[in-house]
Amino acid sequence: MASVCILDEFEVHKNEEFLRIAEELKPELHETRIAPVRLLTLEQGEHPEPEVVAEEVPEALKDKRLKKDDKVILDFGSHHVGYVTLDLASAGSHQDAPAYIYLKFAERLDELTTDIAAYNGWISKGWIQEEYIHVDVLPAKLELPRRYAFRYMEIKVLDVSLKFSLVINSVTGKAVSAVSDEHVQAISTEDEILNQIDQVSIRTLKNCMQLVFEDGPKRDRRMWLGDFRLQARANYKTFHNVDMVKRCLYLFGGLTFNEGKIPACLFLEPEIEPDDTYLFDYALLYGSVLLDYYRATKDRKTLEDLYPVAIRQIEIGLTYLNDEGIIPDRSGQFWCFVDWGEGLNTQAASLAILIYSMRYGIRLAEYMEDKKTIEWLAEKMTVLKRSAVEHFWDEDQHLFVSGENHQVSWATQVWMILARVFDKEKNRELILHTIEVNPRIRMVTPYMYHHYIDALIRSDEKERALDEMKRYWGEMIRDGADTFWELYNPYNKYESPYGSVAINSFCHAWSCTPTYFLRKFYITEK
Amino acid sequence: MASVCILDEFEVHKNEEFLRIAEELKPELHETRIAPVRLLTLEQGEHPEPEVVAEEVPEALKDKRLKKDDKVILDFGSHHVGYVTLDLASAGSHQDAPAYIYLKFAERLDELTTDIAAYNGWISKGWIQEEYIHVDVLPAKLELPRRYAFRYMEIKVLDVSLKFSLVINSVTGKAVSAVSDEHVQAISTEDEILNQIDQVSIRTLKNCMQLVFEDGPKRDRRMWLGDFRLQARANYKTFHNVDMVKRCLYLFGGLTFNEGKIPACLFLEPEIEPDDTYLFDYALLYGSVLLDYYRATKDRKTLEDLYPVAIRQIEIGLTYLNDEGIIPDRSGQFWCFVDWGEGLNTQAASLAILIYSMRYGIRLAEYMEDKKTIEWLAEKMTVLKRSAVEHFWDEDQHLFVSGENHQVSWATQVWMILARVFDKEKNRELILHTIEVNPRIRMVTPYMYHHYIDALIRSDEKERALDEMKRYWGEMIRDGADTFWELYNPYNKYESPYGSVAINSFCHAWSCTPTYFLRKFYITEK
Repeated sequence: MASVCILDEFEVHKNEEFLRIAEELKPELHETRIAPVRLLTLEQGEHPEPEVVAEEVPEALKDKRLKKDDKVILDFGSHHVGYVTLDLASAGSHQDAPAYIYLKFAERLDELTTDIAAYNGWISKGWIQEEYIHVDVLPAKLELPRRYAFRYMEIKVLDVSLKFSLVINSVTGKAVSAVSDEHVQAISTEDEILNQIDQVSIRTLKNCMQLVFEDGPKRDRRMWLGDFRLQARANYKTFHNVDMVKRCLYLFGGLTFNEGKIPACLFLEPEIEPDDTYLFDYALLYGSVLLDYYRATKDRKTLEDLYPVAIRQIEIGLTYLNDEGIIPDRSGQFWCFVDWGEGLNTQAASLAILIYSMRYGIRLAEYMEDKKTIEWLAEKMTVLKRSAVEHFWDEDQHLFVSGENHQVSWATQVWMILARVFDKEKNRELILHTIEVNPRIRMVTPYMYHHYIDALIRSDEKERALDEMKRYWGEMIRDGADTFWELYNPYNKYESPYGSVAINSFCHAWSCTPTYFLRKFYITEK
Repeated sequence: MASVCILDEFEVHKNEEFLRIAEELKPELHETRIAPVRLLTLEQGEHPEPEVVAEEVPEALKDKRLKKDDKVILDFGSHHVGYVTLDLASAGSHQDAPAYIYLKFAERLDELTTDIAAYNGWISKGWIQEEYIHVDVLPAKLELPRRYAFRYMEIKVLDVSLKFSLVINSVTGKAVSAVSDEHVQAISTEDEILNQIDQVSIRTLKNCMQLVFEDGPKRDRRMWLGDFRLQARANYKTFHNVDMVKRCLYLFGGLTFNEGKIPACLFLEPEIEPDDTYLFDYALLYGSVLLDYYRATKDRKTLEDLYPVAIRQIEIGLTYLNDEGIIPDRSGQFWCFVDWGEGLNTQAASLAILIYSMRYGIRLAEYMEDKKTIEWLAEKMTVLKRSAVEHFWDEDQHLFVSGENHQVSWATQVWMILARVFDKEKNRELILHTIEVNPRIRMVTPYMYHHYIDALIRSDEKERALDEMKRYWGEMIRDGADTFWELYNPYNKYESPYGSVAINSFCHAWSCTPTYFLRKFYITEK
């Protein structure tokens, strides 16, 4: 299903003062030299993942004399975000035709063997990291101007000539990030998989931290509010780059549109602009990002500047309620994200997220000593919790249902728990019952899994939460993740909402939160 | 048949003084603004040439909102060599993915509809003028760094996104050449096709005159001695840029190898170097280029500098003679060019070209008052003419034959006539008899046709020569030539020695000589 939002009457209200504050906090990127650590030879068997059938040291590269259709695959050892330079030459007779080469950058090996030409999904194939390049004069230092997210790089000779071969003297690169590994200390538990989960989380976060918190450095390369909220949480426990969070809070706060809505995502180039995408849940969660930030920094000025923006999102959210005190079902539209996953009904979850955001609104109002808002929100929240139970609780199943077909999904239960519609004990029963029932409408994204883990922990199921983290993120590592993926359905490992797994992002911000959970709830900080 | 020469022991002897003289004569290129004159819609019927089924004014371009798979075809009105800049923007929502576009430049319309992916010939597909480009940020001014030879340009959107369209505000360009149209006056005869042939010849020459006389600005973009000789002849009668001829004479003279051989072609980048290709006929014809130059300029210094190089080529040529006073057959190798064309035996022609070159050597020696060389060459020439008749003349057929299978070809007769193995009257009989017999091994290149026209004129068949020019070059114009083509076999219009007509060059230096013939033998100059 193609999921985009295009708003017809889109009026941007830029707050120049907020944008100026954000601009001043623009980070200088750290640069790190990177180089291939081995050359690979692949073979495609029955599985989508190709098999590595031979390895060579990277020094073997410069001795190769590459002719038409020859290719080399470079492994840079881990996932990087950055720039690459090729030092090219020729061998044999004088170059008598352009060297025509094809480059492909891949976060995961199977991207190299996926048939790109066959891709016809609804997301632009422009995201596929491939280049066709003519090198008219050899030797040449080919500095690629675009940024790539990759561990692997394929270089294929489309053609040279009968008289000369292509020589690749070296491939070097520089990785970029707003943060550096030095800023964070590794954890060291006795459970090696937890240490690995932590490290991969941190690498994921680091590689997504560029000029803003990007969702994925391969795709979409921009900041989405839902991802930003989780990144910020992981960041406080690791890099603790609070300026970056502040910058991004001001960016969203400074780019509202129409009734004061916050966009679901925003663009930095050619100039800072909001996307004309409104996601009901993302906008409501802005208050939670602001609250987290205030608690981490006690930065009163930012709280005061942005508090009205956060409260406005709740006010707008409340306008969507119908006479029955629930949000009408808009599951067919890209309007309330919740999770990817075929057929998920989001009606009940949207109400739960509204209730959840109101609790954060109340906390913000308490810091602001804004009694009127506290009272108004508290009163309204009580009403909505009641209507959530009235409309969506199915006493027979002992589960929440959603939409006119009374769909039972994991997502609905998790968000109702996080909304605290019930008390803690009943929430605990609900999450355990959900696990037992294992509804067919499962969670697909680490984003949704984050909320599931959160729900377990908030229901005093810390051990189970840890097991689930190990099962989900640990399994990704066993499946070869250097950074955590945008999508991971353990029941369907090649699931993609876009039409091909090759267009999935394999370093995705919303997947980085295990480090937050581990460091907040499990590891005693020094 | 893949035709390349790779010399194993290749020792270059650069004459730095000669190369310095050449460098000082490096031309400044003239630049001319160019722009599309119409937009085309094509349809592919049964013929390789697509049909133009709709036209639009170029101003219609900027109003188009291009989505995935949309394409536009721009017609720049005539053949140009130069650079192109695209002024791109987006429409709709904010650009939320790279715009991925495909560009193709074509000298002839059918290049746009040829399936490039299917090309698997022996010449590098790197010559095909296509680009795949990601535009990460719109609006963008996309200045393409490479030079193209084209009349047509296709722009295809490989992908944008569901949210935005690509807008092409404008496509502009600059054409480059060492010469300018102002330098030459058009002829105006009552026969319109002759005027057209002259104009197309001049455009061909102009577009091939860059930093040197290139063979073809699309492919191979370098100077070949055989092409250079004909270009220089056309140039004296038109642009009269004698410095350019001098520069190129010194380049070849300054880049000899091994025994003093001149390379068949040379490269300018990354620095000036000869190709490790020896073509027996091309090297021998260097003396004729020098003689033409001296006659046009009376530049004694250049004659004196380069005379030894020219004579050396004849000396080397003579070393290839066997005991019977003929050149052993090397038709299977890329060693004596003569003509493209499947199965042509070049043994007899190679001897004829040796004899031809000796006559030019004698003329040069006369200007140099080098009696010893005159005598030696005259004596040797007489011997070789005799052995040419003894070995290759077939009295029964009244034609020359070549190779052990006694092949009868047009090329052999033409070169024997130009070598003046017989006297003028017998030559005239021979060319007329050849026309009557019409040997199956025909001429394929305008290069060989040039020598055929020359042979007719030298045999006092001027009217017939004019008719043949009109039939051959005139037919190319009727087939749509804006510039004359590298290959033209009227019996097989889609012939290519490379595996696909798409890789043929459609602006090729060796095709430009009708203007030379017309202006030298037919049009009275003012």
